[in-house]
Amino acid sequence: MTHRFRSLLPPFALTLLVAGLRPGSAALGQVPSPSADQSIAIRYRDTADRLIDAALADSTAYQRLGRMVDTFGSRLSGSASLERAIDWVLAEMRADGLDRVRGEPVMVPHWVRGAESAELLEPRRYSLHVLGLGGSVGTPPAGITAPVLVVGSFDELTRRAAEAKGRIVLFDVPFDTTVAPFSAYRAAVQYRVRGASAAAKVGAKACLIRSVASFSIQSPHTGVMHYDSTVARIPTAALGVEDAALLHRLQDRGQIVVVRLRMDARTLPDAPSRNVVAELRGTERPDEVVVVGGHIDSWDVGQGAMDDGGGAFAAWHALRLMQRLGLRPRRTVRVVLWTNEENGSRGSLAYRDRYAGDLGKHVLAIESDNGVFAPSGFGVSGSDSARAVAKEVGALLARIKAGTIERETNGPEADVEPLVDRGVPGMGLKVNASRYFWYHHSAGDTFDKIDAGDLARCVAALAVMAYVVADLPEPLPR
Amino acid sequence: MTHRFRSLLPPFALTLLVAGLRPGSAALGQVPSPSADQSIAIRYRDTADRLIDAALADSTAYQRLGRMVDTFGSRLSGSASLERAIDWVLAEMRADGLDRVRGEPVMVPHWVRGAESAELLEPRRYSLHVLGLGGSVGTPPAGITAPVLVVGSFDELTRRAAEAKGRIVLFDVPFDTTVAPFSAYRAAVQYRVRGASAAAKVGAKACLIRSVASFSIQSPHTGVMHYDSTVARIPTAALGVEDAALLHRLQDRGQIVVVRLRMDARTLPDAPSRNVVAELRGTERPDEVVVVGGHIDSWDVGQGAMDDGGGAFAAWHALRLMQRLGLRPRRTVRVVLWTNEENGSRGSLAYRDRYAGDLGKHVLAIESDNGVFAPSGFGVSGSDSARAVAKEVGALLARIKAGTIERETNGPEADVEPLVDRGVPGMGLKVNASRYFWYHHSAGDTFDKIDAGDLARCVAALAVMAYVVADLPEPLPR
Repeated sequence: MTHRFRSLLPPFALTLLVAGLRPGSAALGQVPSPSADQSIAIRYRDTADRLIDAALADSTAYQRLGRMVDTFGSRLSGSASLERAIDWVLAEMRADGLDRVRGEPVMVPHWVRGAESAELLEPRRYSLHVLGLGGSVGTPPAGITAPVLVVGSFDELTRRAAEAKGRIVLFDVPFDTTVAPFSAYRAAVQYRVRGASAAAKVGAKACLIRSVASFSIQSPHTGVMHYDSTVARIPTAALGVEDAALLHRLQDRGQIVVVRLRMDARTLPDAPSRNVVAELRGTERPDEVVVVGGHIDSWDVGQGAMDDGGGAFAAWHALRLMQRLGLRPRRTVRVVLWTNEENGSRGSLAYRDRYAGDLGKHVLAIESDNGVFAPSGFGVSGSDSARAVAKEVGALLARIKAGTIERETNGPEADVEPLVDRGVPGMGLKVNASRYFWYHHSAGDTFDKIDAGDLARCVAALAVMAYVVADLPEPLPR
Repeated sequence: MTHRFRSLLPPFALTLLVAGLRPGSAALGQVPSPSADQSIAIRYRDTADRLIDAALADSTAYQRLGRMVDTFGSRLSGSASLERAIDWVLAEMRADGLDRVRGEPVMVPHWVRGAESAELLEPRRYSLHVLGLGGSVGTPPAGITAPVLVVGSFDELTRRAAEAKGRIVLFDVPFDTTVAPFSAYRAAVQYRVRGASAAAKVGAKACLIRSVASFSIQSPHTGVMHYDSTVARIPTAALGVEDAALLHRLQDRGQIVVVRLRMDARTLPDAPSRNVVAELRGTERPDEVVVVGGHIDSWDVGQGAMDDGGGAFAAWHALRLMQRLGLRPRRTVRVVLWTNEENGSRGSLAYRDRYAGDLGKHVLAIESDNGVFAPSGFGVSGSDSARAVAKEVGALLARIKAGTIERETNGPEADVEPLVDRGVPGMGLKVNASRYFWYHHSAGDTFDKIDAGDLARCVAALAVMAYVVADLPEPLPR
C-alpha cells in the first residue's frame, strides 16, 4: 500500500487495516496480549492506563528537572553549564539503565552576551530594562548614542525611512493577546528576527524591539535574530514591554528621545556540544524508530526550566516509564534531547544528517517544546491517515484531558522539522500555553513555574503516544 | 444630637433624620433643588449621574497621569523628581482654577538606594535579582559575604537561632494567594518590616526576604522596613520570589549556599517636601471639610503609576469634575496629595498637626491608595451611622458597580489613619486588587498597568461620595 493510497482511506478503514494486520504473537514480557482484531482503544487501554497511573504517581522528572536547573542554571550553546548539564543527564540515563545512552557530537554557535545596558538620556535619565538579542553584534565600548525613532511596523518604517538615518529604531509592536499564543508569537517575532536588518537598510545605527511577550513585569525577553547578508550588521536588543511603551509615549508627545545602547556581545568560534540520545530497543523491529524529544539547551537568562528543560525531561521520563514498567514495544523508542535549538538548530540538523540513511525507518518524531503546562493533546505533521491513527491513540489520553489530536497549524516543532521535511511523520505535544510567552526567553523561566502534576501528565501523554505508535503492527502511515 | 445617640439609630431612621433636617434653599448654581423630605438616593440621583457621565467621558486624569509619570518618573521622598512632580501638579491645579492651591511644607526622610547587588557564590555563581528595602543601612564597600540560612517564619528562626550567627538570614515566606490580597500582605509584610532586627537579634550579618508579592517574573519588590533600636542595624534587601525559592531548594538539598550582598544605601538628612492641597470652597459651611486624597510620593523603582499616582490623580480629578460641572457643595471639598506615605507618613502627620484645631470640622477623609483598578465601593472607618449614610450614597454608584460599602477590615488607609485616630470618619476606595501585589513597589508599577476606564470609574466614585457627603444638610455622623 502506498502512502498516497493509504491517505485516501477513511479513519475507520485504517483502524481495521492496522488491527487486521497485527501479528498474532505480539505480546512480550509484561505487555498484555491484545487480540488482533481489536481497535487501538481496546488493545492498548490497559497498557495506557498503567503508563498514566505510573506517571501520575512519579515525581522523578520533576525532582530531576529542579536539580538540573538549580545546579547548572541556564544552558546556552557554547557554555560550560550546558555541557555539564549534558554530562549529568547522560550519567542519570545510564543509572536508569536505558539502552545505548550516548552524547552525539555537534558543533554549535557560541554567542556570548557580555555586559549590556540601555540608558535613556533625553528627555530624562533612566536605566531601561534591556536584553540583547542572540546573535547580535556588540556596540563600540562607549556605546551607540542616538535619537530614537519609534515605529509600530515594518510598513511604518518604510514610510518613515527618511527619518531613520543615524537613529536607533525601536519597533514597538504589541503581542496580540486576542489570538492563540503561538500565532501571535509568529507575527510579533518577525521584528525580533528581521528588525535589525530592516533598520540597517534605512541607515539606523542600532535596533531595539519591544520584547516579544504577552505579559511583562519589566522582564525583557531575548531570542534569536538573523542578519541579512546584504546590509550592515547593527546591534539589536529587546526592551521591557513597559519601557518600549514609555519611549513610544514620549515620541507621541513630541519629545526628543535619546538612548545610549552598550553591548559587549560577540560571537566566538563554534564550540563542541552533543545531542543526548538514549533508547529502549524494540523487541521485533529494533531498526524502526519512534523518536521522542525536546531540547537540552536554553537561553542564557532564567533557568530554561520551561523552555525546554521540562519538555526534554518529559520525553526522557516517558522512556524511563516504559522501561521501569517493563513495557518494551516492538519498535525502538529513542529519546533525543537536541542541543542548540535556540540559536542555530544545529542539533536537529546533525541528527538528520547522522541518521540520513535511516529516516525511512523513522516511524514518528515527537517533540515537546511548548512548555509543560497542562497537556491537551498533539499536533500532527503528516498525512490524514497518520492523524487518524493518532486520534485513536489520543482516545487513550482522554482521562487526563490530553487526547485532542489536530493538524499542526504553525508548522512542525523546530527540532522535528528537518525530519518532517524528509517525510517522517511529526508530532508536537500541545499544552495550555496561555502563560508560555510570559516567561519564554526571560529571567522568569524558572523552576517555580513548573507544576509537578502538569509535568507528570505531559510525561504520561508522551509515553502513551510513543509506546502505542512504536508497538502497532504497522508503521504509522506516511 | 450626640454622636453616641446617633450611632444607635437604625439606618432608615438616619436617612429620614438627615433628609428632614435639610435646609429648604440648598440648591446653588447648577445644583438641582431636591426637596427636603427625599432620600439621598432620590435627591442626589441627577447630580451623581452628571458626575458619573462626565467622569466616564473625560480622560484628563489618565492623560495627566501618563504625562507626570513619564516626565518625572518615580517620586521617592527627598528626590528632585518628587519635588518637580509636585511643582507640575500645583501648576496644573492652578490652571484648573481650583481654590487655594498650595504646597504645604513637610520635612521628609531622605533615603538613597545607591548601587546594590547580591551574588550567589556557592554552590555556583549567579546574579540574584535583588532590591534593597527602604531605610536599610548599606554594607561595607566589599559587601557582606556569608553562608545563608533560609527560614520560613520567625518561629523557625527562633528554633534555629544557633545556626544564624554570622550568616545571612533569608526569610522565604510565601504570599498567601488563597486569601484576600491585603490580608495576605499584612501577614507577609511583617518579614519585610521586622525581619532585619529579628535576624540581627540572633547574630545574623544581613537579612534577605522573599519579595512580598503575589506573582513575580524575577521582579523584586521594595518597601519600608524598621530597625528595633535595641539591636544592631544590618543591611536588608528583597530577592525576586524565584531566587528566594532557589536558595531554599538548594538548602533543602543539603548544599552550602553562600551569598555576597553589596548595598550603598544610606540615609541623608531630612529634606523639604510638600503636601499638595487644593479646594472647592463650600457654599454654606466652608469651614467644614471633606478631604479626598492619595499620596504623591512613590518608591524609587517603576513609575509609581499605580501606587499611588493613579489614586492621587483620581482624587484630584474628582474635585476638578465638580468644579468643571459647577457643582459646589455646601461644605468645602479639599484634595490632599500627601507626601512621604511610603517611608515615614510625614505628610499625613503634618496634615493632622497643621489642622489639629480644625479636625472637629473634618466631616470625612477619603483615601484612594489601593490602585485604580475597577472600583467596587468604599471601606468605612467610623460609626455604624456613618456607614449607613455611606450606603445610601453607595446606591448612587451601583450603575458603575462601585457602590459596595463595608466596614474597613484592615484598619484605615495609611494617610487618613492619623485623622481617624482623632475621630474623623475615614473611607478607603476599594478596587479589584487581585493584581495589586504583582506590581506594588516594583519596577512593574508603570503607566501601562493603568486602565483608562477603571481610572475614570475611580474618579466617578470619589466624586460622588465626596460631593454628596459634603453637601448633606448634616455632617456625617461620628
